[in-house]
Amino acid sequence: MKRIAAIVMHGISEFNLGVVCEVFGVPPKGFDGPWYELALCSIDGASVRTQGGLTLAIPQDLAATAMADTVLVPDWPADTRQAVPEALIRTLQAAHARGVRLVSFCTGAFVLAAAGLLDGRRATTHWLWSDRFARQYPQIAVDPQALYVDGGQIMTGAGTAAAIDLALHVVRQDYGADVANRVSRYLVAAPHRDGGQAQFIDVPVPAVHDDVRLASLLSWIVEHLTDPISVEGLAARAAVSPRTFLRRFRAVTGTTPYQWVLRQRIARAQQLLERTSESVERIAELCGFGSAASLRTHFRDIVGTAPLTYRRAFRHSSSPNR
Amino acid sequence: MKRIAAIVMHGISEFNLGVVCEVFGVPPKGFDGPWYELALCSIDGASVRTQGGLTLAIPQDLAATAMADTVLVPDWPADTRQAVPEALIRTLQAAHARGVRLVSFCTGAFVLAAAGLLDGRRATTHWLWSDRFARQYPQIAVDPQALYVDGGQIMTGAGTAAAIDLALHVVRQDYGADVANRVSRYLVAAPHRDGGQAQFIDVPVPAVHDDVRLASLLSWIVEHLTDPISVEGLAARAAVSPRTFLRRFRAVTGTTPYQWVLRQRIARAQQLLERTSESVERIAELCGFGSAASLRTHFRDIVGTAPLTYRRAFRHSSSPNR
Repeated sequence: MKRIAAIVMHGISEFNLGVVCEVFGVPPKGFDGPWYELALCSIDGASVRTQGGLTLAIPQDLAATAMADTVLVPDWPADTRQAVPEALIRTLQAAHARGVRLVSFCTGAFVLAAAGLLDGRRATTHWLWSDRFARQYPQIAVDPQALYVDGGQIMTGAGTAAAIDLALHVVRQDYGADVANRVSRYLVAAPHRDGGQAQFIDVPVPAVHDDVRLASLLSWIVEHLTDPISVEGLAARAAVSPRTFLRRFRAVTGTTPYQWVLRQRIARAQQLLERTSESVERIAELCGFGSAASLRTHFRDIVGTAPLTYRRAFRHSSSPNR
Repeated sequence: MKRIAAIVMHGISEFNLGVVCEVFGVPPKGFDGPWYELALCSIDGASVRTQGGLTLAIPQDLAATAMADTVLVPDWPADTRQAVPEALIRTLQAAHARGVRLVSFCTGAFVLAAAGLLDGRRATTHWLWSDRFARQYPQIAVDPQALYVDGGQIMTGAGTAAAIDLALHVVRQDYGADVANRVSRYLVAAPHRDGGQAQFIDVPVPAVHDDVRLASLLSWIVEHLTDPISVEGLAARAAVSPRTFLRRFRAVTGTTPYQWVLRQRIARAQQLLERTSESVERIAELCGFGSAASLRTHFRDIVGTAPLTYRRAFRHSSSPNR
């Protein structure tokens, strides 16, 4: 019998809780033999208020983790910026020391990080919070591109629906691929998805408040993506030396001009793939790529999938009933 | 302001409820303007026990549907075979007569069907229940291949995670494709998925209790999928006339020998794609298809995707930590 203890805290997303219950709480139809024993535990054995305002009675508390061979943190209300309770941190550290498998979904990675359990490891979380996660925990190698990171004893999942991908991975590890495929069929969800979390990340032009001259330069670049762009040219436009320009650019954007421009070109290509039916060749031109092949290579590196696969998924369908 | 009333009944899957709350209960980050107003209503305004045994206080009752322009039935405990409460049926019929949009997820289609609202229409439900659904409601054109069916005023979704696909379709209709794409990015779920529900349907050899001779013949066919198979040959093997054979075959399987054998060959091909690294050419041979092209054509018709796309999704990965 495999025992999973899932921590249910105030503000938990009903979706993440739903994945826990659907995958680990119900044996797949036709499965013989013992399925997981799932214990939902609150931090203090009291009722919990979900993100959407539902009240759930969660009678078990953290003591229930003592029997578990997996402790799961399915969420964390990262937007509240509250501190992770000490009792939860100590429970997770003790479980880790006993060799218990630790799994986080979505922003649950913030809880494992607060317990110091991800230090020096690779980990992922919801892409919307991955920058803040990386700034708050520079000692963690954050990978926002993956749907999940299997680090052996500790596994972290990416945002929202990536909980399904990681849950299926856990089932695959515990019961084998045939059973995991059976669960995925029942869920009507692919057992393996291509392209990782990368294809879902939104890349808006960053808000730059501190450096007005650089901010207007970044806007200028976005309006001139088809122009050839050089560090010298940009530095001259900002009226500073190339060295000063590079230093300021990195301070504001966190990256090099080359990488930043490339990301903006790819973001434009994503928009055009979504909103137009222009060919990949034409989109490459409109975004300042030298060729369709160059667009394809960079697109795959950054978005994790091919331009036309991306278009098929994200293209605007007509809305006949609007 | 768009108002959605979602019916929460005993036995509701936490996952389906989670999709409702995540998509309709929370505006996408950065979205300006009013999002849906979501009302969760139980049938009698009392607390509800979920599939996994959680107790939810759902203070609103069916009266809350009076204000809604969409009424959503996110689930139905089809395995209990209980009757749909009369009060719910009357509420849905009245909403339909007022021109309210009706949406079902998963087995929620059973509720719309019980209210007679799907008669003469195309509809879908979870593939696991679609045969029973079709038998119980022969006046409905059941399409178990689709992820959802948009019938205008009434929309029905397929199983479990297909709730996400239909929910995104509703957002696309109400707020446009840009907003729906933003929600899908946040969910880390594709706004459009290829291949429909078809690729998730499991096709086991049906249990045949009534006709022992035909049952052993079906087993024989499954063991001889690479042989040429004819109605005459099978009838001779069953020691009946071809006409009698065809009649009995259809009575037991619901289809023709040709279609049945084709499904079994495709099911075998799916297994080999999942479990081996044989080429499509070799798998075509092993399953009794004349050529790889013939396998590809039938595979796409029945499974809704290409053999290698299917393999990429369902192939068994190694399980390093097992």
